[in-house]
Amino acid sequence: MLANLLNPHSVAIVGASDDVGKLRGKLLHVLRRGGFQGTIYPVNPGRLEIQALPAYRDLKSLPVVPELVMIAVPGAHVAAVLRDAEELGVASAVVFSADVDPLVLASVAEAGKLRVVGPNTEGFYDTGTKLAATFAGVVEEQFLNEDVSVWPGRKIAIVSQSGGLGFALYGRAIAEHLPVSGVYTTGNEADLECLDFVEHLVDEGEVGVILMFIEGLKNPRRLPAIAGRAAAKRIPIVVMKVGRSEAGQRAALSHTAHLAGADTAYDAYFERFGIIRVFDQEEMLSAAAAFSRLTLGPGKRAAVVTTSGGAGAWAADLCGSYGVDVPETDSPTAANIAQLIPGFGATGNPIDVTAQAVEDGGATLVKVLEQLCASSAFDAVIVNMGLSKIGRIAALRGLLQPLLSDGGKPVLFHSHIRPEDENIRALAALGGHVFPTLRGCAFALHVIDRYHRFLQAEQPPAAGDGVKAIEIESSGSVVLTESETRRIMEAYAIPVPPSVLAQNLDEAMSAAREMGFPVVVKIQSPDIAHKTEIGGVALGVGEAELPAAYERIIVNAVKAVPDALIEGILIQKMMPPGHEIVLGVVNDADFGPLVMLGAGGIYVEVLKDVVFSPPQIDEAEARRLIRRLKTAPILLGARGRKPADETALARLIVAVGRLAIEQEGVIDQLDLNPVFVYPQGEGVVAVDALVTRKEQA
Amino acid sequence: MLANLLNPHSVAIVGASDDVGKLRGKLLHVLRRGGFQGTIYPVNPGRLEIQALPAYRDLKSLPVVPELVMIAVPGAHVAAVLRDAEELGVASAVVFSADVDPLVLASVAEAGKLRVVGPNTEGFYDTGTKLAATFAGVVEEQFLNEDVSVWPGRKIAIVSQSGGLGFALYGRAIAEHLPVSGVYTTGNEADLECLDFVEHLVDEGEVGVILMFIEGLKNPRRLPAIAGRAAAKRIPIVVMKVGRSEAGQRAALSHTAHLAGADTAYDAYFERFGIIRVFDQEEMLSAAAAFSRLTLGPGKRAAVVTTSGGAGAWAADLCGSYGVDVPETDSPTAANIAQLIPGFGATGNPIDVTAQAVEDGGATLVKVLEQLCASSAFDAVIVNMGLSKIGRIAALRGLLQPLLSDGGKPVLFHSHIRPEDENIRALAALGGHVFPTLRGCAFALHVIDRYHRFLQAEQPPAAGDGVKAIEIESSGSVVLTESETRRIMEAYAIPVPPSVLAQNLDEAMSAAREMGFPVVVKIQSPDIAHKTEIGGVALGVGEAELPAAYERIIVNAVKAVPDALIEGILIQKMMPPGHEIVLGVVNDADFGPLVMLGAGGIYVEVLKDVVFSPPQIDEAEARRLIRRLKTAPILLGARGRKPADETALARLIVAVGRLAIEQEGVIDQLDLNPVFVYPQGEGVVAVDALVTRKEQA
Repeated sequence: MLANLLNPHSVAIVGASDDVGKLRGKLLHVLRRGGFQGTIYPVNPGRLEIQALPAYRDLKSLPVVPELVMIAVPGAHVAAVLRDAEELGVASAVVFSADVDPLVLASVAEAGKLRVVGPNTEGFYDTGTKLAATFAGVVEEQFLNEDVSVWPGRKIAIVSQSGGLGFALYGRAIAEHLPVSGVYTTGNEADLECLDFVEHLVDEGEVGVILMFIEGLKNPRRLPAIAGRAAAKRIPIVVMKVGRSEAGQRAALSHTAHLAGADTAYDAYFERFGIIRVFDQEEMLSAAAAFSRLTLGPGKRAAVVTTSGGAGAWAADLCGSYGVDVPETDSPTAANIAQLIPGFGATGNPIDVTAQAVEDGGATLVKVLEQLCASSAFDAVIVNMGLSKIGRIAALRGLLQPLLSDGGKPVLFHSHIRPEDENIRALAALGGHVFPTLRGCAFALHVIDRYHRFLQAEQPPAAGDGVKAIEIESSGSVVLTESETRRIMEAYAIPVPPSVLAQNLDEAMSAAREMGFPVVVKIQSPDIAHKTEIGGVALGVGEAELPAAYERIIVNAVKAVPDALIEGILIQKMMPPGHEIVLGVVNDADFGPLVMLGAGGIYVEVLKDVVFSPPQIDEAEARRLIRRLKTAPILLGARGRKPADETALARLIVAVGRLAIEQEGVIDQLDLNPVFVYPQGEGVVAVDALVTRKEQA
Repeated sequence: MLANLLNPHSVAIVGASDDVGKLRGKLLHVLRRGGFQGTIYPVNPGRLEIQALPAYRDLKSLPVVPELVMIAVPGAHVAAVLRDAEELGVASAVVFSADVDPLVLASVAEAGKLRVVGPNTEGFYDTGTKLAATFAGVVEEQFLNEDVSVWPGRKIAIVSQSGGLGFALYGRAIAEHLPVSGVYTTGNEADLECLDFVEHLVDEGEVGVILMFIEGLKNPRRLPAIAGRAAAKRIPIVVMKVGRSEAGQRAALSHTAHLAGADTAYDAYFERFGIIRVFDQEEMLSAAAAFSRLTLGPGKRAAVVTTSGGAGAWAADLCGSYGVDVPETDSPTAANIAQLIPGFGATGNPIDVTAQAVEDGGATLVKVLEQLCASSAFDAVIVNMGLSKIGRIAALRGLLQPLLSDGGKPVLFHSHIRPEDENIRALAALGGHVFPTLRGCAFALHVIDRYHRFLQAEQPPAAGDGVKAIEIESSGSVVLTESETRRIMEAYAIPVPPSVLAQNLDEAMSAAREMGFPVVVKIQSPDIAHKTEIGGVALGVGEAELPAAYERIIVNAVKAVPDALIEGILIQKMMPPGHEIVLGVVNDADFGPLVMLGAGGIYVEVLKDVVFSPPQIDEAEARRLIRRLKTAPILLGARGRKPADETALARLIVAVGRLAIEQEGVIDQLDLNPVFVYPQGEGVVAVDALVTRKEQA
């Protein structure tokens, strides 16, 4: 779909001008400087010529129908231009103007004939087609320098809603000599959105990593399919999504919904689909460099080599903070290294080769590197050395080349002393990378390892198996009745305490005797929502107390709601305590139903020990979710405790996920709170279940 | 003490050479280039002249006794040079050589006549005295450029054990145009240590902030006094201490000690004495810029102004992650800003002035800044704007000057687009600062706010009030007996369950009746350490069961240790459960006793919900400690729970701190586990206490 947009034969620029210092003049200037090979038609009524090209009055006066129209007229005039373009059958338009009537754009988007980027976009630059449809200064400056897309490494594409941030990132990536193949900014996304560009890039398959800056996705539900295709092609997606600090500001009805929020939903989807979330440009560039320049594979066990002892310990600390191990050097490797470095160095890990090891220009350091790359104890090597001296890398070229070839172990460079650009370029030319910060090295290993583990893990199936018909009213009170709730629990085999609806005290007594005392006694009436408040519930009722409790509850109910229809008295087994968990479904405005799993009791709130997941969950994924809880070790049997029945809990989570998918049209929220998880082999029980109906639109 | 070292009239360089490309030649070269005004004597046997200065055979041949000797001969020859220096009465020496016999240095240090920096140091550079006693390349390069110490801002001093990292930081600070007054690296610290330099800098009082790189302090117990004097002069200390990932690797005897470790002790001392700990050079430089260039004061409530909407939300997210609030703009200020910016901007916070607001060169942006600085809703302002265009700041000079004067609100600049150095310099010349990352802006506000709160808070008194004599054996088994433990608990008014040592069943029964059943029954014998294991303890014993339990325990004891001296049977009240806390004292090899406070039960291990503190604790500090627990909200009454007796717990913590100080010579570890904290007004009780004796050296 975007092939036309990105590779037109002819482009009209409506609103073009001569002043290359201003936006409208820049568009033409940058487009030509970028090397676009097709025909360019400047359009501007009162002009015969613009920047030495013949100018046209309007789109209809052009000798041909342009394939792409770039629009930079004031917002109020955009509608007329779009109408002309539609009538002519133009395929694509980029609307740079802000302040355009959204209705005009909505109708163009709905018609679907003319595909629009923007409004309020800074445009895009595709190095493949050499199409620079943008006024971004950084692109213009870039043409004065070399073509960055030729630097070694898998290609990096940038897709951003914000033009400012997208092109700022582009400028920073260039400064690090990273191979950027294109930057695409989508502005207000009246029609085309970020995911259209991502989809195109994935399907084209010529990029190695996609970087996204978003405030939110226009159609978040497209994400799983696109992310799945990206994963199949091993194209990592790195996302910086702003707005995290707004999370939790949403009005919330129920306890679980209070903990969720759009940002949490994004996190859950990113986590599931192997999308790396970052929080600033620095993390973004570290991840970009990692996926562009390092061999994709594990990155968990790092060797740290340094010419400065202090920096070694520091690198190890940073690795530790990102979950990257810095294990001891294996003895044979350590012995080999000892032959190479001075006695006051260190062969353990970090490996301090001392400043002496670079006095020969670095040949000794490279020999140590070779040893480490050959050792099976390490997945990757971080090298910290001073790169302030011009020519240092150039002199090692021949020695470093074999170590930096694709398929080898990741070798990451950093210079604690401010590095000279000449060295950074020299290493980049070899396919290596000088990470600007040591933190960036640790983060890079963290992300490649995470992505590797994501690709290794079997992913749960994409969807449930259709809607299961359950007989519940499609409207009514928001909270489902006990019997409707029970039907749902039964349909999904969610274990609940035994219960019987008794019509008189005898029935109640014999039911209670059968299930065993103590029991819970509850009034059952469609007219009484808040049972506890009116004294309609009694907990822990023993045999002797049952008759009195039975009567008291009926009296309380009749007193509170005189006309209430009383269906009976519910006798429920009082379950023995178990490990407390909360499990539920919340509905996210963007992504739809999410499964929520949390530590029970007071800890869910105080410790925020809760995880969210898309509802497509199989048993393996359920176990991963359980293990993401901070209090998981307690559940799994820390400090000599009996492990809880993880299998039963995992199956319960799977069932809840299936319910969330199949009943999405019916159920808004589900809250199983608490769920008691009993010791291994003894199962789980959802002691209390609250289900709310989706309100009819 | 260091005044002589840093400001000598004459310097001898032993091992000086002509080759300015090598360490030994560089020393002389750099010293002269640095502008040292005194006399320099190169010393090298086989030479008449070095770098055009007359050379001498040895120190004894010099025409005067030099005040400072720089030594760069091979390690094996250092001893002879030091002996000469000592004999001549030289005051100070810097030993650059590595591989020097530690015994030689130890004896020089012990004699205390000749003060030594190093060995294995990269030396120092003091811009005040213009003494560049170093071979660091970055210092040499710096002389080619301007004098960085003249840049506006409070002076920054760097003190580092690692020469590589110290001078690397210096180079990076220079590149950010920060006013560095000196860099001092101490190497292996055979004599002079980092804290000597810090103490000197604090006492001189001419620096605004001290940056330290350390692996560990040689004499950590000097830290409180020096840090206290720094705080009194409002000189923040920023420390990067490496080795955090090694924390926890220590062998540990008891449960509480297992959670402590040297790094934890450093953290506790840093936290208490307002020392800012950072984890990389980037954080170090952000903190340095903050303390050098921003008004010291609160930084909690930030306004974020941006020319790019996306960057605003991003800055807000980063602020959030450092606990810096981004509150709504107050209505009058918002109304005033609305007059200044386009309608499609945003006046809330973040404030999106749009790119239009800088089309006039930035005057509009500055007007918005003035509004925000005048608003009482904000403590500080973060400005994100593109600074890639040369001359942008220079053009705003007159407008920005008043906003950046000392005493005004902190205004922090960042450019999401790669900034031009010309703008960075122009802003630095005005006393402002372009932070290289937005994260750095958020971190800077975090640290100035933290330091402000530290200065505001009343600090607990520095020491306890002498040793309280308690009658316990000065040697014996490592674990104290029950009666010794009880004496300590009494001396410090630590509440324990009522208990009586009974000599027969009648005494046991009447004691139990008086305290109320159920009770705990324990064998009491100096010969039985592990009571539980031999069946010497019975819990929850009711009146009917007491006789049997009493007898069983005696039988078990006699069976297990036939010759045991049985002092009696301890009857202890079984306390009702309360909120569980662990509280104790651990002994750190570096700092001595530390108080440990943690969540009780299984959570202390799984959640690592534990804090450490120096033992000087008053009630206010104890409350701050309690609030640092993750589970504090539960203790303090979250979700409608009855608040626990915080006052009683705080007093207990104070008592434990006093005990730790006063009994440091006697007690190694104390473990009160669990402590039950009852509801407000109902006190606390240390249900179980384990005390270990300090082993005689």
